[in-house]
Amino acid sequence: MSPEKAASYIKSGMTVGLSGFSTGAPKVIPIEIVKPGKVKNLTVIQGAGVGLLKELAESGSVSRYAAFQWSREMHNSINSGNISFTDIHLGQLSSKLRNGVFGKMDYAIIECSGINEDGGIVPSISLGINNTLLDCAEKVLLEINLAVPAGIEGMHDIYKNDFKPLNGILERKGETVFRCDPEKIAGIVITDHLEPKINFRDTNEVYQDIARQVLTLLDKEIRANRLPRDFTLQAGVGGVANAVLQGLSEGGYRSLKMFTEVLADGALDFVKSGVITEASTTTLDLSPIGLETFFGNTEFYKKHIVLRPLEISNGVAQISAMGLVAMNTALEADIYGNINSTNAMGMKMLNGIGGSNDFCRSAKLSIFITPATAKNGAISSIVPMVSHVDSTEHDVDVIATEYGYADLRGKSPKERVKEIIENCVHPDYRQQLWDYYKGALELCGPCQTPHDLSKALSWHQRFIKTGSMKQF
Amino acid sequence: MSPEKAASYIKSGMTVGLSGFSTGAPKVIPIEIVKPGKVKNLTVIQGAGVGLLKELAESGSVSRYAAFQWSREMHNSINSGNISFTDIHLGQLSSKLRNGVFGKMDYAIIECSGINEDGGIVPSISLGINNTLLDCAEKVLLEINLAVPAGIEGMHDIYKNDFKPLNGILERKGETVFRCDPEKIAGIVITDHLEPKINFRDTNEVYQDIARQVLTLLDKEIRANRLPRDFTLQAGVGGVANAVLQGLSEGGYRSLKMFTEVLADGALDFVKSGVITEASTTTLDLSPIGLETFFGNTEFYKKHIVLRPLEISNGVAQISAMGLVAMNTALEADIYGNINSTNAMGMKMLNGIGGSNDFCRSAKLSIFITPATAKNGAISSIVPMVSHVDSTEHDVDVIATEYGYADLRGKSPKERVKEIIENCVHPDYRQQLWDYYKGALELCGPCQTPHDLSKALSWHQRFIKTGSMKQF
Repeated sequence: MSPEKAASYIKSGMTVGLSGFSTGAPKVIPIEIVKPGKVKNLTVIQGAGVGLLKELAESGSVSRYAAFQWSREMHNSINSGNISFTDIHLGQLSSKLRNGVFGKMDYAIIECSGINEDGGIVPSISLGINNTLLDCAEKVLLEINLAVPAGIEGMHDIYKNDFKPLNGILERKGETVFRCDPEKIAGIVITDHLEPKINFRDTNEVYQDIARQVLTLLDKEIRANRLPRDFTLQAGVGGVANAVLQGLSEGGYRSLKMFTEVLADGALDFVKSGVITEASTTTLDLSPIGLETFFGNTEFYKKHIVLRPLEISNGVAQISAMGLVAMNTALEADIYGNINSTNAMGMKMLNGIGGSNDFCRSAKLSIFITPATAKNGAISSIVPMVSHVDSTEHDVDVIATEYGYADLRGKSPKERVKEIIENCVHPDYRQQLWDYYKGALELCGPCQTPHDLSKALSWHQRFIKTGSMKQF
Repeated sequence: MSPEKAASYIKSGMTVGLSGFSTGAPKVIPIEIVKPGKVKNLTVIQGAGVGLLKELAESGSVSRYAAFQWSREMHNSINSGNISFTDIHLGQLSSKLRNGVFGKMDYAIIECSGINEDGGIVPSISLGINNTLLDCAEKVLLEINLAVPAGIEGMHDIYKNDFKPLNGILERKGETVFRCDPEKIAGIVITDHLEPKINFRDTNEVYQDIARQVLTLLDKEIRANRLPRDFTLQAGVGGVANAVLQGLSEGGYRSLKMFTEVLADGALDFVKSGVITEASTTTLDLSPIGLETFFGNTEFYKKHIVLRPLEISNGVAQISAMGLVAMNTALEADIYGNINSTNAMGMKMLNGIGGSNDFCRSAKLSIFITPATAKNGAISSIVPMVSHVDSTEHDVDVIATEYGYADLRGKSPKERVKEIIENCVHPDYRQQLWDYYKGALELCGPCQTPHDLSKALSWHQRFIKTGSMKQF
């Protein structure tokens, strides 16, 4: 049917699940739904949204959204309160949906690449929560995207979370297609749309320097026999992850494994060169060039890459069994090792927690990376007390910036302070942090975690007031 | 050998692992070790310490301790900085030890109840990290406690974490005894000591009221088919847990399951009456009367209770598969649902995080309980911003006090504020919290999590300065 016809089923107040974990979102129906004057008060549930979010956020048709979102327009709508946003661990999104946390799911709108003769629905280039949406929704609308080649079939391993560890990254426990009662399918729309262009931050000198610190750490762990040479890595996308993989490649590492939620262009190169031989992900976040490479070599990549539902890629039972190195980005960290991933100055929501805590909480080695400063030095990424906590001091083994890394394992809060200030903080802020800590220590009496509560958040206050965290 | 002889093997600077998860600690060797003038600078690793800690903390012989600790003297030594304390998720303690986070383990001192002819070491009434200590330590000292009857054999299910879900609470996957290379055993001491008396807080009216709120919630969940009638519960020890079980019993609930880390006297009664038919724990925290009951009926309790290593009882892979209701105590919560479990006023360490986040992070339904006030009303347990975070807003489904419960599932931070203030806060503090929130809302501009950073921690500052959080 036409996108207009399909969209007409969606009424005000409904809860709609959308496919897509960055890529793989439906391309034409949602845009029709949110055209001016059509519907209001929609709840939209999606694993992780990117391109489509601009239209959803600006339409005024959406009053609630979950989960991860990566769009300036959606940030604005969330922070202004026009859209209620629930920030949850992505690894729990499917179980929360199945437990009815977001109520009845009226429609699921799922992009796929085809439907087989036996009714199997062949996925597109991401899985996310699509299997859960197909299970939970009362009705389903499909978008068959002809731009995704038939060769993708066989790359997916789809099953509901069984809480059992995988016997290896490439083990297959599920089906390569979705199953859905045909009675539930309310309409099918044919599309032929490439993915919207994704802009990943390019690499730069700071990212290279952070990567060098991570490489030093990994090298040390491997030499100490705390990590095998063919270890398993979880990493986000972006400059540091790519530079780390590049460094591992140059260091002669081969046959590495990835168990992660996102693979981007860089990963395809490393799979091709044999640096990575086994990778599990819930999405391929590829640029147009990356997509061309991937679509032209699906048979090769199928031997090395498996796409799994978010509840598996981010499942703590699977992650804890992997013994993996998790590398996630912090927005800010504090001198005791707590991490803020989401709320700028403790208040303004950025993208959401995503899978960062799924991985770091159950990793064998949990690394958080961040440039030591932001806004041209006006913000120190290391502060006396983080203004919001997404991963606690208990979840964080190592913090790395371009200046070095702090190994927090087995250390008390007071020991962590020295480790973090001396190794991670930008020189402009080191003395200022020592001054805070020493003042707190004098004031607080006997205590495990010294703070001067009148100044603990003063760096954020100063930034809001003066535009800089620096004391003059 | 004599306790003195055994103790003489321990030299200054060594790392010593002690058995015991509250109960089951070695009774005589450690006391000898820390006698005045003997050794210094010991690192002591124990699953969870209670009685023995007074002597360890006051001896001046111990410079580092992990993990959970439940003693005023140990709190004091930690907060004064005499003992470095690393607070970690108990479910990760074994894997951290195996990964060498605390360095080489010189000696393990393990209480057991006997040694079989084939060398199998029959455990005492707690497991904790004993299997890990026996694996990791270079040398082992055993205390065979004759006060523990032989009938306890067969109650334990000992195996290294395989990250696989259990097929039911009573499934047995391991051995009933520890295995340890006899070459490692440096000495055996015979003892005959009952457990030191444990003082659990009695129940009171507030606990009864909190329990009533939890029962209302559970009832609602069961009626909505979000929870089976024979659900699985994790709960700490103490008045509220007992009152909840009492309420379930009076409500006609039978065949409940427990998957938890501690079972106390109350649980024995509920097992006897059939309210609980299957229970898994890592320790039995029993009073002298409880011990008498238990030791006199080991054959009966063996049919209903399994003791497992801490890495299993608190393993996230096992917990997430259980679909359990987790009920843990908060020291304070904030209006957005973040939980402080450890640091009074953000600074003074109490007992440590224990297993609270192991369970709440992977539970099907995660409940935090707290009386609405402390110190005769001078402290509100609900504050604008918690002064330390142990479980984040992402980990918490419900907060319950004696006034009601706040259901945070699927709600945005702004929606949570109303839910928490109206349902959970003591009437004396409700307006004061609304004033904070409304002030923050005016000041912060468009944002997801309104805060006035100049006042976010002012309640704690006021308490430190005036002895009360109340504004006059």
